[in-house]
Amino acid sequence: MAYRAPVEEVLFLLQHVLNVQHYGNLEGFDDVSSDSLEQILSAAARFAEDVVAPLNQPGDGEACRFLAGSVKTPRGFKEAYRQLVDDGWNSAAVSAKLGGKGMPYVVAAAIEEFINGANQSFAMYADWGFYASLLMDAEGIEQLRRDYLDPLIAGTWSGTMALTEPHCGTDVGMIRTAATPQPDGSYRLNGTKIFISGGEHDLTENIVHFVLARIDGAPAGTQGISLFLVPKFEAARAGMLGKRNGVQCLGIEHKMGLRASATCRLHFEDAKGWLIGAPNRGLKQMFVLMNHTRRACGVIAVAGSEAAYQRASTYVKERVQGRRARACDNGEESKAALLLDQPDVRRILMRLRAFIEPARALVLWMALQSDIYERSREESAKERARERIELLTPILKAVLSDMGFEAAVQAQQLFGGHGYIVSTGVEQYVRDLRVLMIAEGANGVQAMDLVMRKLFRDDGRGFRSFVNDVSQAAQDMPEDLEFLNEAMSRSLIDLIAAFDWLHGASAADASAGAYDFMTMLGLVSLGYMWTLIIAAAGKVLSAEEGMHRAYKIARARFFMERLLPDTGAYLRRITSGAQDFLNLPADAF
Amino acid sequence: MAYRAPVEEVLFLLQHVLNVQHYGNLEGFDDVSSDSLEQILSAAARFAEDVVAPLNQPGDGEACRFLAGSVKTPRGFKEAYRQLVDDGWNSAAVSAKLGGKGMPYVVAAAIEEFINGANQSFAMYADWGFYASLLMDAEGIEQLRRDYLDPLIAGTWSGTMALTEPHCGTDVGMIRTAATPQPDGSYRLNGTKIFISGGEHDLTENIVHFVLARIDGAPAGTQGISLFLVPKFEAARAGMLGKRNGVQCLGIEHKMGLRASATCRLHFEDAKGWLIGAPNRGLKQMFVLMNHTRRACGVIAVAGSEAAYQRASTYVKERVQGRRARACDNGEESKAALLLDQPDVRRILMRLRAFIEPARALVLWMALQSDIYERSREESAKERARERIELLTPILKAVLSDMGFEAAVQAQQLFGGHGYIVSTGVEQYVRDLRVLMIAEGANGVQAMDLVMRKLFRDDGRGFRSFVNDVSQAAQDMPEDLEFLNEAMSRSLIDLIAAFDWLHGASAADASAGAYDFMTMLGLVSLGYMWTLIIAAAGKVLSAEEGMHRAYKIARARFFMERLLPDTGAYLRRITSGAQDFLNLPADAF
Repeated sequence: MAYRAPVEEVLFLLQHVLNVQHYGNLEGFDDVSSDSLEQILSAAARFAEDVVAPLNQPGDGEACRFLAGSVKTPRGFKEAYRQLVDDGWNSAAVSAKLGGKGMPYVVAAAIEEFINGANQSFAMYADWGFYASLLMDAEGIEQLRRDYLDPLIAGTWSGTMALTEPHCGTDVGMIRTAATPQPDGSYRLNGTKIFISGGEHDLTENIVHFVLARIDGAPAGTQGISLFLVPKFEAARAGMLGKRNGVQCLGIEHKMGLRASATCRLHFEDAKGWLIGAPNRGLKQMFVLMNHTRRACGVIAVAGSEAAYQRASTYVKERVQGRRARACDNGEESKAALLLDQPDVRRILMRLRAFIEPARALVLWMALQSDIYERSREESAKERARERIELLTPILKAVLSDMGFEAAVQAQQLFGGHGYIVSTGVEQYVRDLRVLMIAEGANGVQAMDLVMRKLFRDDGRGFRSFVNDVSQAAQDMPEDLEFLNEAMSRSLIDLIAAFDWLHGASAADASAGAYDFMTMLGLVSLGYMWTLIIAAAGKVLSAEEGMHRAYKIARARFFMERLLPDTGAYLRRITSGAQDFLNLPADAF
Repeated sequence: MAYRAPVEEVLFLLQHVLNVQHYGNLEGFDDVSSDSLEQILSAAARFAEDVVAPLNQPGDGEACRFLAGSVKTPRGFKEAYRQLVDDGWNSAAVSAKLGGKGMPYVVAAAIEEFINGANQSFAMYADWGFYASLLMDAEGIEQLRRDYLDPLIAGTWSGTMALTEPHCGTDVGMIRTAATPQPDGSYRLNGTKIFISGGEHDLTENIVHFVLARIDGAPAGTQGISLFLVPKFEAARAGMLGKRNGVQCLGIEHKMGLRASATCRLHFEDAKGWLIGAPNRGLKQMFVLMNHTRRACGVIAVAGSEAAYQRASTYVKERVQGRRARACDNGEESKAALLLDQPDVRRILMRLRAFIEPARALVLWMALQSDIYERSREESAKERARERIELLTPILKAVLSDMGFEAAVQAQQLFGGHGYIVSTGVEQYVRDLRVLMIAEGANGVQAMDLVMRKLFRDDGRGFRSFVNDVSQAAQDMPEDLEFLNEAMSRSLIDLIAAFDWLHGASAADASAGAYDFMTMLGLVSLGYMWTLIIAAAGKVLSAEEGMHRAYKIARARFFMERLLPDTGAYLRRITSGAQDFLNLPADAF
């Protein structure tokens, strides 16, 4: 069962739902209104399908191996990485000025989906050109940029984000890695970092670590964290290797999944590093990147769900098993049927599709908001995009990763006993996608971020403005699709009631309701995407594509009738409050 | 973090919620009203904690290994198995007449929980004395019983249940393994079976396969399936090994979890076997066993959830990470707090406890129903127990395995990044518990069995009678706990509405709603258990145990406010019908 990148679906979303051709005035969008969009996506699809996907299952079996400080990636990864770089997919989103392809995020996100759908572990190594360009945007580091950023963007070197330490993950204020100023303006770093993806490997000749550390004497907590560039090898001159630095890989983690991605323990011992930007601003700088990687979790969740769905869909169309409903009641046995003919199997398939399609729309829509925010010259459009990004980043990170994991579990379920066997190739998606609920800030942290920090800013202006858009889109549905408007209206009422309740609640009650609110907002966001998809399908899908539109309406109906109404249950949970369990002593747990 | 068998909790349930001391008139119950119950459970707990649990994580790492037709279990399994047999835990539920311990199921189920909580893979090898005694209850096989059943009960030999073939799992009517009658009254079996747990291993000197096969010329479908006993070694005389039989292990599966349990592909080539019972009655005979193993899935789900919860609870009481809610708003940073002090962490812990406690009650309550059904002389009590078993077996198998898996995922989540690392020891529960949703008939099959076969039998008498009991228990709640009655009443209304809708629905619509109905019935059953638990806690927990009662009330409230009300969402899903997606052509999926 080969992975097929969903090019047609992405084209429909970009051209008809998001109308990217209307954004020709934004940098990098000049190409996207022409045939070249299809060419770019098809080329990326071929790379993902032919080069990357075949390495997925073998890579999981072989896994990364650690030997004497080095990490060997699975067979074939090196060659695939070289082609990734040769084709320039690693720098799709990097601005052309810096030597990248300068594609809009909305296109780069689609490519990111394809590569992740083909091989989530491999994709972990692929984006350091872009990430480094975000981190190295500070003033006064022109020399560092010449020495390090160019090869990072070229992909001949790769990077890492080094935050977590053994005693602290989420709580970065507790970081202990120490940076001591040196007379030449550099720093000496000492400390240990864990869970560093790509901290050591054999795909590139050099690895550049972006490290959060504390300058000697810096204030306690998050106010004293600075960002450093610490290379494995110093740059002798641009792109050329110099001296080996004091960074050692102590080992790699044996993980539940994502086994072909090297998760490293790194030890910094008098490692030479350079401060990036102002001292004690490291957390803020890292958050520019973190917000991208959090949204990327949504992209990856869609990618993995799609891949798992494709396998399940192929299987149930081939596997003959079980009888048609109620055939057993008349004493006779009917002929065995395809699994696809079992109503409960169809229910699961519908559930997957009803999630995957709007989830893909949402990640692309959010990527477009980033494009607008970063490239538009219209202040009101920028501000609106900023609000959407702020509000919905936790949705992409957390709600899509929760639902994506659940989708993989359901896809696995359709295989019966075979789904539990490694060689079938579907359980890997469950193990790989599981990490998205944990990495880049566990999903509970996202809920806190949303409700305790973002939601009520400026009196909840961003939320109210988003709700208005959602409500308007629902009201614009044609009369024969009134069920969309009805379902959305009901859930918007639930959502607003939850918002109002949280607004007046104690911090503790609000915290205890945060996760459920986040999930509600996620469901409404997906419903919003369904209204946009259906509106576009009604306009552009011609007569011969009528069935295509009918399928989408059936999926939207499934979503509106069977998934969205859960907002009522979430509202009840939130408003039940939490005092009785927040006040329990520790021995009650 | 050592596993602790929940002896105290089980004693509370047995003595005060289920009142097992009132059943002294049933065989095997004479001991349970005395101190010996505590002694038995404590001894089983020590065995599980000290002998079995330490092998769990190493066993997952080492896994079973296949070499030239043989299977090597992980280090220590042989010794632990020997002690299991020496202590007689393998025959806890086997009747004393047959040489077993003759314990009530309700006690044996608790012991089963302890051993599974300690090590799910190991426990897979432990119950063949009991299973064989169920399968070998037929007439006319006295010699077979002497030759094979005695060593199976003694545990010197073990057994397997061999149903699945490469082309058929759920749909046993498609079985192809052929049995050819021989002049001496035996049969020659030829065919291949897959997914055979314990099909080959090094724990016992002999393995007795209970095989479903088709006698030459038998009717097609399930009406032509017979049950055979096919040993690895023939018995020379009682308990002594004779000739090696034509059963070969072709290999073992590399699975997502349960890696220390050998899942075998078996090839039968002119293997000698004996018919058990009448020809063509094999499926019915096997179902006596299957109904037990399906209920056992519920026991195992509770066991794994409890074990995962214990780890998470220990971790969040030690791990300092994150700040108290809203501390960040005033610009200052508060001192880092225990994870236990985060409201969202408490929400997750409560969710786990709110499920685990009534789930344990439910599996023990169901075991007691089996005791009553098999041992009572009162016809009305037997019939009532039969109805409960029929109705709720799918709940134990499917709803508890769904919720148990989810519980393990949530427990893992509390560890953040560490939860994804194998050595932390929590992700194994996710992988191990996953199988329960698939094995013994995938959960979708359970939903079909419930709604399409069991629910409407005798005009739904069993369902109505159960609903009456549940309703009565809710109404009996004291006034200060009126929230229990209110929540239960609302959900019972939902449940009955769903029942009525399904009753009038087409077969296809009913099939598409079956899974959601099953989950509703599961939630209501767990709620029922909460009412029984709270009623008992109010009566028996003395003043110094007041907190204990208060904790249970807080958990019950969490369940009633945050989990049970989901029945409303399920009802909406069911009644939305399924025609629009059941009618879609295959290319829509």
